[in-house]
Amino acid sequence: MAKRNLYLKTVSVEEAYEKYYTALKDKNILDKKTEEVRTVDALSRITSEAIYAKCNSPLFNAAAMDGICVDSKKTKNASEENPVVLKLGVDYKIVDTGDAIKPPFDAVIMAEDVIEIDDETIKIIAPVSGWENIRPIGEDIVVGEMILESNHAIKPIDIGALIAGGISKIKCYKKSTVGIIPTGDEIIDMKDDPKEGDIIDSNSYMIKALVDESYGIGNRYNIVKDNYDDIKKRILESLNDNDITIVNAGSSAGTEDYTVHILRELGDVIVHGVSMKPGKPVILAIVNGKPVIGLPGYPLSAYLAFDLFVRPLLMKEKIYSEEIDAITSKRLVSSLKYREYVRVKVGKVDDKYIAAPLNRGAASQMSMVRADGILVIPQNSEGVEASENSKVKLLKNKSKLDNTLVSIGSHDILMDIVSDIMAKNYDGVTLSSTHVGSMGGLLALKRGETIIAPTHLLDENTGVYNVAIIEEIFGKGKISLIKGFNRIQGIMVKKGNPLNIKSIEDLTKCKFVNRQRGAGTRVLFDYKLKTLGIDPNLIDGYDKELSTHMAVAASVASPYADAGMGVKSAADSMGLDFIEVGVEEYDFAIKTDNLDDDKVKKFIGVIKGQELHDKLDKLGGYGFDKVGEIINI
Amino acid sequence: MAKRNLYLKTVSVEEAYEKYYTALKDKNILDKKTEEVRTVDALSRITSEAIYAKCNSPLFNAAAMDGICVDSKKTKNASEENPVVLKLGVDYKIVDTGDAIKPPFDAVIMAEDVIEIDDETIKIIAPVSGWENIRPIGEDIVVGEMILESNHAIKPIDIGALIAGGISKIKCYKKSTVGIIPTGDEIIDMKDDPKEGDIIDSNSYMIKALVDESYGIGNRYNIVKDNYDDIKKRILESLNDNDITIVNAGSSAGTEDYTVHILRELGDVIVHGVSMKPGKPVILAIVNGKPVIGLPGYPLSAYLAFDLFVRPLLMKEKIYSEEIDAITSKRLVSSLKYREYVRVKVGKVDDKYIAAPLNRGAASQMSMVRADGILVIPQNSEGVEASENSKVKLLKNKSKLDNTLVSIGSHDILMDIVSDIMAKNYDGVTLSSTHVGSMGGLLALKRGETIIAPTHLLDENTGVYNVAIIEEIFGKGKISLIKGFNRIQGIMVKKGNPLNIKSIEDLTKCKFVNRQRGAGTRVLFDYKLKTLGIDPNLIDGYDKELSTHMAVAASVASPYADAGMGVKSAADSMGLDFIEVGVEEYDFAIKTDNLDDDKVKKFIGVIKGQELHDKLDKLGGYGFDKVGEIINI
Repeated sequence: MAKRNLYLKTVSVEEAYEKYYTALKDKNILDKKTEEVRTVDALSRITSEAIYAKCNSPLFNAAAMDGICVDSKKTKNASEENPVVLKLGVDYKIVDTGDAIKPPFDAVIMAEDVIEIDDETIKIIAPVSGWENIRPIGEDIVVGEMILESNHAIKPIDIGALIAGGISKIKCYKKSTVGIIPTGDEIIDMKDDPKEGDIIDSNSYMIKALVDESYGIGNRYNIVKDNYDDIKKRILESLNDNDITIVNAGSSAGTEDYTVHILRELGDVIVHGVSMKPGKPVILAIVNGKPVIGLPGYPLSAYLAFDLFVRPLLMKEKIYSEEIDAITSKRLVSSLKYREYVRVKVGKVDDKYIAAPLNRGAASQMSMVRADGILVIPQNSEGVEASENSKVKLLKNKSKLDNTLVSIGSHDILMDIVSDIMAKNYDGVTLSSTHVGSMGGLLALKRGETIIAPTHLLDENTGVYNVAIIEEIFGKGKISLIKGFNRIQGIMVKKGNPLNIKSIEDLTKCKFVNRQRGAGTRVLFDYKLKTLGIDPNLIDGYDKELSTHMAVAASVASPYADAGMGVKSAADSMGLDFIEVGVEEYDFAIKTDNLDDDKVKKFIGVIKGQELHDKLDKLGGYGFDKVGEIINI
Repeated sequence: MAKRNLYLKTVSVEEAYEKYYTALKDKNILDKKTEEVRTVDALSRITSEAIYAKCNSPLFNAAAMDGICVDSKKTKNASEENPVVLKLGVDYKIVDTGDAIKPPFDAVIMAEDVIEIDDETIKIIAPVSGWENIRPIGEDIVVGEMILESNHAIKPIDIGALIAGGISKIKCYKKSTVGIIPTGDEIIDMKDDPKEGDIIDSNSYMIKALVDESYGIGNRYNIVKDNYDDIKKRILESLNDNDITIVNAGSSAGTEDYTVHILRELGDVIVHGVSMKPGKPVILAIVNGKPVIGLPGYPLSAYLAFDLFVRPLLMKEKIYSEEIDAITSKRLVSSLKYREYVRVKVGKVDDKYIAAPLNRGAASQMSMVRADGILVIPQNSEGVEASENSKVKLLKNKSKLDNTLVSIGSHDILMDIVSDIMAKNYDGVTLSSTHVGSMGGLLALKRGETIIAPTHLLDENTGVYNVAIIEEIFGKGKISLIKGFNRIQGIMVKKGNPLNIKSIEDLTKCKFVNRQRGAGTRVLFDYKLKTLGIDPNLIDGYDKELSTHMAVAASVASPYADAGMGVKSAADSMGLDFIEVGVEEYDFAIKTDNLDDDKVKKFIGVIKGQELHDKLDKLGGYGFDKVGEIINI
């Protein structure tokens, strides 16, 4: 076999951070350059030193309200019985808020407390004390007082205060420039037509956005093929033009991963391999007195490694994001060897936060897009038990989670559309929908992990959908069913139906792809097989399980399968032919108590609404004669 | 008196929002324009429609790890006793992660599980099943699947997923342009030399930063003087050039507040006056089919009104920021007429969050800079009792608060410097310091609202600082004293000492400014008066109390006072003369249990450190012979 890289002994995240940052410190690489920036241009910049006020605010003793300014001594004896009469220009002056008050005047009386006699004469019926309704000089900001400390990210309100404190320029850290080098024979730029074997380079653009978001300036280079000399040349070019260089990927131990060899030739590799998952193949190096970092090829690994090792270089401060306690919805087994970062969806159900793990593969970019937070399983732990409390680092505002309607259960494209309509029409109220099949959803509802559970489970005895199984799981009196949509289920086959499949019986003569146990479509399929007396073992691919209609459709469109069961809308969206098998009812189970929840009411409004129905009509295969009806079970 | 505006009947925040947004909706003003943006340039942009994948990711069935691809059927009988021998090119191919797997191969075996015989022959000792270690086509993203919903602010990870899903351009809302018009006779641009009566225009720059931060484009106009025709002309100019116009200020009811009259002449004033505090004088108008908003002149009012009424116009979604439950440290009385926004510092002490109200004046810009959150007192509430639980909307990350050492007590400039050194040297650990005088700090420590309490209270009987009073308040065995700094206390007088003040006795012949009851400086001053047998009533200004050394110094530098008591560093920083009165001990009281707290250890490190001592030496007036010593009381 061809030669592969061996990792240097992998080290823990803390050790890697410590080793690398100590090395950078020793070579003074962490001392960032500073520059003067106009205060008005300083939004989001990081202060490199404390900033002290150069003038007082207010600059002078100022009226705190609209009214008149007076000499308080002259008002001493004023009362309802003995009003004091004052003359304009002699005894008082008219002032608006902010006007300067100068001796002999030393107090302001509110306009409302003044009785007008004529244009130049007034009377007052209560005394005022010295300094009343005056904002004394320096009340808000005093010369020499610190307005901002070092390493502070400047907010709009700070800009106002700096200007009020007489600061027109401030010292900030210079933005670091970061060269980003995408490498790989199989990587193509997104403008090209992708063909089998190609991988669209999306990482380098994600990394550029991460750099920009972290107050750096990302410079992306063109893709370099897997060639030792070409990669070396590009690294040297980037070292010349940038403060920091990132190589992506080639940091792993594959046959064509040259990065670590090049960096060893050019400089010092401080760390190669960090015991974290995802993200293991990280290279932390120093070349020509500058940091060079090899990020792994899987998007998630690149994202996490960036967060841990590159972002601190750019921000000069550690990033803290919020942590919450959440109950894990299922058991997570993890290796003692790694600290593992598990992306989770977080939902608030009955005042508890529930963390539902998403796809744990490092390649799953969407799991990060969909994630509400990251659950960290420490390096020396075997995992987390179901229903155990864990710390989750949030990627979203907690209050946003509080406004999210949680749905776990059967998948249908319509849930995406409902989610979008809610996001568009309701301020901040959104739908978070996880797909685990009908039965999985009902069990999540039972465990208190979801508010609604989309389900389409046929009772083989009565032929009625959903009611029987809910009664079996929950008993009577607790759950209601929000009636949803009639859906046409059927067999998806390749365009033109080359194998001439006409019914379920024909599935024994082709490569089939199945849905997972517990999915309503699977229940329907197994029911049909039983009714027809077909042995599942005769169906090639019966054991190949996928978890959504769309995944089945994508498989049928590929050379690996000829047919699968699913809904018409999924078949249409992949350009497949479709043989109708039957109509089923796709409904929403919910605790009866939760029907009053404002988010649920909005959800019901959307599923009954014309906007959704128009969109479903366009997709085809849906009926809505009972939608929104409530059945108490 | 001159004519003043009368507000239209003020309305509640909800009513104002509802009225204005209904009016904007009726005239279709809220329908924002959209534009196509390259995905790679879309960081932080807001999607105007849902985005669906155009290609699968992966694009093909791909190796999930480095190894060899095989036909799983050929491995069926492999075992340690009966290894299966495979030939390169015939039975297997070498693959790296991400390589395409094509028929007849249907599984990948990890490099580690392969036993090499020669360069072209291997053996395996375990079977592999079909599809093993293969990422099937569309595993992450399937064509037609929604990647992002509408109204989503695009993050770096989203950019990666969009590109992987074949999306090179997306539809976003066009950024709104916002004209910002600063008005007022007394307002000057910050480049000029401020003189008495001038107010530096800081609001318009803060508003521009708020606009930019909310994904808009802020265009600031030059200052317009208070002249009806000039303001009208500038508003028309801005209406022509921008989507939204903000006039600041002139929205109030002063003699020269023309804005509302101009807007009534040009279009419709929907709301004038909102029952919130600060922020009452808000104008919400529509002119030529565009929103025109009059923001109040006080910075805080402008900030809050922007947040409530302008930001939603720019963001297309409501902003949610996090809320916590916090215990209010003192009683807050509020009017039934307003919803009041109180800026608070929030500290975590013994696992509870404590909200300490900051300056409630609408003019206090620094209260917003210093604020950790905003406590909202509802419109129909009379306020909040001390120790009552309240909701606080955070302006900072909660985890940042958890890393903050809370200090409440006596003020000294050195606390600013300590705070800056901590921010610079310790990742994320900061000092939050509130100034309520020595006694106020000890009482806060007693109530559990602070971790450390800086104090310098002389015991009149023993002449020893701090120990006696702590024992009196807490008893023995609970509190420790971290010894701090010797400080020279004295009388600050104007430069050159024109009144020739030489001692405390001379204070009867000048205008004095005092510190508040409970401040260590005040205790020292009262002790000296008593010792010298001087009647406080003989001192003009004895009742005028200020709460920091710097405020006293600023007052002595103004025409309103001739002398005040305080520390030398404050006098020096305002260029005042100083007459030494005595040396006192400025120490830090703390619960003995909290000495082990990591943040406290870092604090002690800083006060003992050379960096601080060098800076204090430069200021002058400090001694540090016992600094960092611990006295258990």
